[in-house]
Amino acid sequence: MLKYQARIYVTLRPSVLDPAGVAVQSGLKHMGYDNVEQVRIGKYVEVTLDAESEDAARQQLDIICDRLLANPVIENYCFELTQLSEAAGVKG
Amino acid sequence: MLKYQARIYVTLRPSVLDPAGVAVQSGLKHMGYDNVEQVRIGKYVEVTLDAESEDAARQQLDIICDRLLANPVIENYCFELTQLSEAAGVKG
Repeated sequence: MLKYQARIYVTLRPSVLDPAGVAVQSGLKHMGYDNVEQVRIGKYVEVTLDAESEDAARQQLDIICDRLLANPVIENYCFELTQLSEAAGVKG
Repeated sequence: MLKYQARIYVTLRPSVLDPAGVAVQSGLKHMGYDNVEQVRIGKYVEVTLDAESEDAARQQLDIICDRLLANPVIENYCFELTQLSEAAGVKG
């Protein structure tokens, strides 16, 4: 088994309103930053997992994102995968 | 003025407990994914702003992150900056 780290980004689809982002932008305006044009807030998730191969890890992460981390109706996701080590459980 | 897009990642410091991440990991375990070792949840923020230069944009983003987007006591942040266009307001 190989150990991978996935950096997952979940963002609202561009057509979906983001009230939290609008609130942050308005806060920034009140702080004097009126050069900020748009703020969109999403989620960032780091997942460490063991898998047989990069393909297996990607397949599993797709399911995890679709079923748990993102709401496919209003959100998009993408992820980057990094291999952490050759074999799991050889630390220490 | 130049237009920039910043992709900001706010993560909990490694020493800080992440109950939401633990909950997601436990949910994944219940779904049968017991090869997931760790889940850490953070924020992902996209900010579009006008600035005179990349340096000016970076300086401003540091202040915005420190004062509004991240809690420096328990969170770290980093960002990537991309220049979107030569001049602001030439769309359409």
